[in-house]
Amino acid sequence: MTFSELLLKRRAIRDFEDKAVPWNVIEDILKEATLAPSASNNQPCRFVVVQCRRTIKALSDESKANLLRDAAEGRIQLNADYLAMLKNDAFNVFYNAPCVIYVAGAKAVRSLDVDAALAASYIMFSAAARGLGTCWVGLGSHIRNSQLLGEINLSAEQRIIAPIILGYPRSVPAPSERRAPQILRVIAEAR
Amino acid sequence: MTFSELLLKRRAIRDFEDKAVPWNVIEDILKEATLAPSASNNQPCRFVVVQCRRTIKALSDESKANLLRDAAEGRIQLNADYLAMLKNDAFNVFYNAPCVIYVAGAKAVRSLDVDAALAASYIMFSAAARGLGTCWVGLGSHIRNSQLLGEINLSAEQRIIAPIILGYPRSVPAPSERRAPQILRVIAEAR
Repeated sequence: MTFSELLLKRRAIRDFEDKAVPWNVIEDILKEATLAPSASNNQPCRFVVVQCRRTIKALSDESKANLLRDAAEGRIQLNADYLAMLKNDAFNVFYNAPCVIYVAGAKAVRSLDVDAALAASYIMFSAAARGLGTCWVGLGSHIRNSQLLGEINLSAEQRIIAPIILGYPRSVPAPSERRAPQILRVIAEAR
Repeated sequence: MTFSELLLKRRAIRDFEDKAVPWNVIEDILKEATLAPSASNNQPCRFVVVQCRRTIKALSDESKANLLRDAAEGRIQLNADYLAMLKNDAFNVFYNAPCVIYVAGAKAVRSLDVDAALAASYIMFSAAARGLGTCWVGLGSHIRNSQLLGEINLSAEQRIIAPIILGYPRSVPAPSERRAPQILRVIAEAR
């Protein structure tokens, strides 16, 4: 499969088989993620891998509660669709994924957002190339409870950038719509 | 070439043939970049393509001057290597690249950093799959002069996230060193 084929094949997957992802596969994906470029080759990304469904549910509940509190207190704005989803007790932000990978790093690293996003893109492609599905679930990053942070070994000096769900797709949605490239300006070579 | 092979092949390229990148190739790369995921499929990325060497030099000079001013006035910290490079009049932050692509977007979009980084990763892979070289040049993003911003059609409400240089590699460096994945915690499936 060429890269152009892989690009077209990759989807956001939110429906997974009830089947664990073998550890050696996760390890291969994380090894490929280390090949992502980072500012000054600083390699600031740290990874947390959660395959325990009870912990995944606890992380989802914690993140939902914090998002709803932030919205109620006016710190963030959530659209009506997201609010309704978050208020539904049965809704797990990680869907039925058998695995969640957090890409995190030190808050002090100025380029952490883009460095972690690049590593996340490697994880998503590396998974797709192996027949696995992923989705970056922004709703799952709001973990503040110190006991839960301790369980996933994150300190107050660190921040989660990308929560990625991972598993074998049960269904693959149609491609979501894309606009043509929005090119603001082309300055051609002077002849 | 499989994705794993492409991953290993991709390098940060800073040395290019004196050969323009055909417009249809740039267009294909930007079309593939639109397939990148974005928060809520908001697709906030905007692109600027500069192939004129005079403009590329002007953008480099502007970005260098702003970085040196920020460093002198204590707003940012630059290490000695970067300072020496930026103080060298002959140093072009975009090296000898025949093309610079800016990935930008509205400052108001909260997820702009990660959305643009994902699009940038698509650009870098899409280019590598076509035998082209790229490098994300963070030093080239500091454009504030209103005339130059006008030339590249960016408003005060927009921000450059990723300056990507693009061209045909003249030399390909050895892979830069990577550490093993830094895994903070694994929480295995309960049996």
